Amino acid sequence: MKLLYPTSVPGLDLQSLKALASLHPYDVKSPIPEEHVDADILVTWSNAPENLKDAAKRLKNLKWIQSLAAGPNDVLGAGFDASKITITTGVGLHDHPVAEHALGLLLCGARRFFEMRDYQLQSKWPQHLGGSFPRSDFTTLRGSRVLIWGFGSIAKTLAPHLTLLGAEVKGIARSEGVYGEDKLAELLPQTDALVMILPGSAATQNVLNAERLKLLPKHAWLVNVGRGVSVDEDALVDALEKGELAGAALDVFQTEPLPESSRLWKAPNVVISPHAAGGRPVGSADLIASNLQCFLTEKPLRNTI
Amino acid sequence: MKLLYPTSVPGLDLQSLKALASLHPYDVKSPIPEEHVDADILVTWSNAPENLKDAAKRLKNLKWIQSLAAGPNDVLGAGFDASKITITTGVGLHDHPVAEHALGLLLCGARRFFEMRDYQLQSKWPQHLGGSFPRSDFTTLRGSRVLIWGFGSIAKTLAPHLTLLGAEVKGIARSEGVYGEDKLAELLPQTDALVMILPGSAATQNVLNAERLKLLPKHAWLVNVGRGVSVDEDALVDALEKGELAGAALDVFQTEPLPESSRLWKAPNVVISPHAAGGRPVGSADLIASNLQCFLTEKPLRNTI
Repeated sequence: MKLLYPTSVPGLDLQSLKALASLHPYDVKSPIPEEHVDADILVTWSNAPENLKDAAKRLKNLKWIQSLAAGPNDVLGAGFDASKITITTGVGLHDHPVAEHALGLLLCGARRFFEMRDYQLQSKWPQHLGGSFPRSDFTTLRGSRVLIWGFGSIAKTLAPHLTLLGAEVKGIARSEGVYGEDKLAELLPQTDALVMILPGSAATQNVLNAERLKLLPKHAWLVNVGRGVSVDEDALVDALEKGELAGAALDVFQTEPLPESSRLWKAPNVVISPHAAGGRPVGSADLIASNLQCFLTEKPLRNTI
Repeated sequence: MKLLYPTSVPGLDLQSLKALASLHPYDVKSPIPEEHVDADILVTWSNAPENLKDAAKRLKNLKWIQSLAAGPNDVLGAGFDASKITITTGVGLHDHPVAEHALGLLLCGARRFFEMRDYQLQSKWPQHLGGSFPRSDFTTLRGSRVLIWGFGSIAKTLAPHLTLLGAEVKGIARSEGVYGEDKLAELLPQTDALVMILPGSAATQNVLNAERLKLLPKHAWLVNVGRGVSVDEDALVDALEKGELAGAALDVFQTEPLPESSRLWKAPNVVISPHAAGGRPVGSADLIASNLQCFLTEKPLRNTI
């Protein structure tokens, strides 16, 4: 059994799997070398689109692709024969990194680190941000009401951090145990910080639109670490410029990299993060090992699409 | 019994104490009005030095001062008669706000929000901060080794947040249950992030000096939310400029406001926060109420100096 693993994951150590399969590293930016087109298993992470299209044509023996991405749109669009190849995702590997980044963005908004930076660049002390209680209504997580829209594994990882800081956390999702989307109109007006962790799909396109933005209190912040398609960016900039929303810390955008012409760069109280929340699959080796064991013993794999 | 409380604490609600004492608000920036110089109890928060000096001379009936600051140096230096007046502090009221700010500063360092801001101001996308694993060694709290120097109530509030994010937390203090200062030379080289929460005193002057800075790994970050006197700022800037330390997020300084001439403003990878970690006493009303009950029944007060 031949397994190809990417060199794009620093520190990925698969030594413990040597007895189970023949392991070969490969470069995700180049065509797979000729001597490895007989591979049975391909692990992918940030592969170039050309690499994947080429692999789909040349790796005729492929039986299983383990993507380390939560949503492996790249693999699904490359032309692999889905009738013969099992595809598993990296769902769960990104929960901790994305939750940590979302927490950081929330604190950037509440504690106004972005505004401190602007003053620092001019060697100026922002006295109004120190001392007693800044005027804004979202200046701490303590006692704040956080609504997480998209309550999957990242949200479940994030929520305890917010609760420990003293926030009251509610979730909106289609799944059980949290509020359904029919409650949005009721919950948005009671929200100090809205955290969006929605996947990108036709169903989530512009779901945070002008109408829903108006339902948020004026002092509320928006954080988006899901997918950029879910936010109507023009409506967001309008809301910020009119003072109908206090601020937005965004890691994802309708178009990435965010075009220089975007109004978001200069909109008031916007924090722009370059899709940096994830990008570090944590626990990849364990997932690959566990799925390889299942694959070899013909048991069901984790994270099958 | 007449109690004067400051109008400088937004939202301070003492209505429940009406039956116990005669309550009167006062302005901390002006002299106490003549009709209130017979007060028995004075609550202080961010008072002007002149207000306190004046009160020390004119409030001849004063028996107890409840400061809401953790370290009420202002009250101690104003000339009150310590032989007749009990002074209690606001120790504990600042644990949550300062811990939250320290967490935010650590995430600013790890996730490089300050660098993202510099790019945003130029409408530029910092691609190198997104995608897979940035190169720096302190890019997440997960798996990082955090050493907290000064392990009092703020540190004890902060530690669980770091542990939940996956950090390994150690503490240095003179108290029991943590490492003593004699272990510094051993622990500093094993530290990814050093968080200083030391009080200001002759004993803490420049304790983080050039010699100790050299013991930290080159990839390490420093966060200071204690007092500025504890860090030798010239030695710190030297270390940052030579690449002997990865970065520093500072909320306190030897001189505040930080003078425009300070080398810290432009030193590489420095985050300047304007002594904004605390400044929001949380739970003031409860402390005042509980101490007032004790005072009236002649029981020992909390946070006595």
